Amino acid sequence: MLSVAEARTKILSAMKPTGYETIALANSHGRVLAVALTARLTQPPADISAMDGYAVRAADAPAHAKLKLIGTAPAGHPFTRQLSPGETVRLFTGSVMPSGADSVVIQENVTALGVDIHINEAAVAGKNIRPAGQDFKLGDVLIPVGNMITARDIGLAAAGNHPWVTVHRRPKIAILSTGDEISLPGEAISAGGIVSSNAHMLAAFISVCGGEPMVLPIAVDDLTAIANGAEAARGADMLITTGGASVGDHDLVQPALQARGLTLDFWKIAMRPGKPLMFGNMEGMPVLGLPGNPVSAYVSALLFIGPAIAALSGMPPKPPILETARLGAAMPPNDSREDYVRANLQRDGYEWVATPFGKQDSGMLRTLANAQALIKRQPYDPAKSADDIVEIIRLGAVGL
Amino acid sequence: MLSVAEARTKILSAMKPTGYETIALANSHGRVLAVALTARLTQPPADISAMDGYAVRAADAPAHAKLKLIGTAPAGHPFTRQLSPGETVRLFTGSVMPSGADSVVIQENVTALGVDIHINEAAVAGKNIRPAGQDFKLGDVLIPVGNMITARDIGLAAAGNHPWVTVHRRPKIAILSTGDEISLPGEAISAGGIVSSNAHMLAAFISVCGGEPMVLPIAVDDLTAIANGAEAARGADMLITTGGASVGDHDLVQPALQARGLTLDFWKIAMRPGKPLMFGNMEGMPVLGLPGNPVSAYVSALLFIGPAIAALSGMPPKPPILETARLGAAMPPNDSREDYVRANLQRDGYEWVATPFGKQDSGMLRTLANAQALIKRQPYDPAKSADDIVEIIRLGAVGL
Repeated sequence: MLSVAEARTKILSAMKPTGYETIALANSHGRVLAVALTARLTQPPADISAMDGYAVRAADAPAHAKLKLIGTAPAGHPFTRQLSPGETVRLFTGSVMPSGADSVVIQENVTALGVDIHINEAAVAGKNIRPAGQDFKLGDVLIPVGNMITARDIGLAAAGNHPWVTVHRRPKIAILSTGDEISLPGEAISAGGIVSSNAHMLAAFISVCGGEPMVLPIAVDDLTAIANGAEAARGADMLITTGGASVGDHDLVQPALQARGLTLDFWKIAMRPGKPLMFGNMEGMPVLGLPGNPVSAYVSALLFIGPAIAALSGMPPKPPILETARLGAAMPPNDSREDYVRANLQRDGYEWVATPFGKQDSGMLRTLANAQALIKRQPYDPAKSADDIVEIIRLGAVGL
Repeated sequence: MLSVAEARTKILSAMKPTGYETIALANSHGRVLAVALTARLTQPPADISAMDGYAVRAADAPAHAKLKLIGTAPAGHPFTRQLSPGETVRLFTGSVMPSGADSVVIQENVTALGVDIHINEAAVAGKNIRPAGQDFKLGDVLIPVGNMITARDIGLAAAGNHPWVTVHRRPKIAILSTGDEISLPGEAISAGGIVSSNAHMLAAFISVCGGEPMVLPIAVDDLTAIANGAEAARGADMLITTGGASVGDHDLVQPALQARGLTLDFWKIAMRPGKPLMFGNMEGMPVLGLPGNPVSAYVSALLFIGPAIAALSGMPPKPPILETARLGAAMPPNDSREDYVRANLQRDGYEWVATPFGKQDSGMLRTLANAQALIKRQPYDPAKSADDIVEIIRLGAVGL
């Protein structure tokens, strides 16, 4: 069986970045830059004062010097005249340095008596000045292609005078839940039936990752219904199905989609939860088939859909960050499948302590919702004792 | 001067949670639950099969037993008749257990010849069955009040049959940038002027934290302009100003707002960057005044606005999580102010290595955008050597 890493490599190699669109900078948080953002101006535009104080010629302003105040230049109102020997100009943080001045004496270090400014501490040339271009210069690359735009990037792009940015289109991800036994919340539930949890969980997951989810109507366990559902996904950048992904008599997703052109890549991987993971291509659209149970669906989303959306969005895709924690309880040896174990996470000083939940049945969505981490176990990992160090994925840290 | 922790306590004590609204579950990601969500059904609704296999009476199904297949019950189509001795029913994952059966033999462990099912491995009572209510029972609290709803919570709420959820209204946060020297991106820039970076950086920050930002027009350095800007914020849950928050001759925010009813709580804290932080109340609306330089504004947002939005949203507010890293370079002793130092972060095995950027001028937005962490230094922290352990805030981890 394929390993998790091999499956991810296959999935990622099938992802082509989406095209571009130009959007308002104000709406660009979390979008992926498609064209590098270069500075349209130099910042600061001129030498400016870093403090509230007095612009001086350092040579004129040893301790006990007396200078003549010839003007005031608040930020945004540069002093236009040249500073002559013995003169000073009142400045504030952000004020442009007057021509001729080479230092700022902070206001705490002068005694101001009308236009007579007594220097109490000698000026030092260059001091308290932010030189022109200290932050960036016209033409500097401020944000490279492929960066997901943060709040700080928005500030930087604004400072570089960009009202618009060109980003990759959000990948459109269609979600098709299948099964006779499932209904949407609030709808009639059939005898022995359950409420569908995967579609909207995955939709939220996809949104957080930067995708645009499209929830298709539930398809009953019928070849035509499933095939028609998949047809509705045409034009999406990826189709995700849940349920029926294995090869039992009632696992109809593979045959239904194969009848409509699905080429199968793999349909089983060495992972728990989530062994029956299917991947293929339906006339150019990647198709990822997840198991129907929500814990498997979520773990598959974390390990495969998140990185796939990153790749579709034009980012360097990477699996979730692995961190370490100390085990809060012993764990039995692992079998042949890479295992992701729901766990509670607590702080002990600066260290994380991960305690696996006692029951790991993949039907138990409540333990998933309550988990703060997944403990990752390699195939054939030997038994672990409490206090052993293990690898974890912090679920809070991925915002999901 | 107030410490960062004291300032945060004062700010948080002034925050009152917003009221409630009922929204579609599908739109609830990141919202804060205002009314506990209890299960509207039992999950699973009945004992169900955990595998594809055969329902049996364990007592009838030792190894080498032969049972008679009397029907098939896919998920969503329960078998309605009682299982009699010697009988078996074909089941699939999620199928309701037929009455009378107490075990499932997985399909790999039988030989099926027409209606003759040969048991190859003895059934064990209770095996491969998910008992009714294993995940949750009718009336169980699924998500408590005050939780920020994750993708997993949406799955759990759906499984509990909730199409709607009642959440706190997103706190509306008004942002008023002040200064004669600033323009919005793409607008005309005055001589010596710069482009405003704070307003839209903070707006994105506020959105990520769950708030609803409202960017007001830039107010020039004029008492009336600033006061009118603040009037436009009426009805917001908090007003944030940037620039002019100190007490220099051109710091007009305090006098402008005091003329309109601002009661000042504090206006200076022992922190770098960001010392001139102002907090007060304007006829019931909390007002937080940030310094104009974007690095100070961002660090103040991280330490104060994020927790304030959490409190306004009905969550237990907490400061950003502190983690540890090994220093990649030496650092000089700190002075009397708590310091937040922009740093690069790299992985060394499972350990983070934080290397402070050489220049920390608070006017340098580019080093902020490039930072992956802030190193936190306590007041009077002695000099640190490379490889010493320091406290950090990982900026990627907070999604900002």
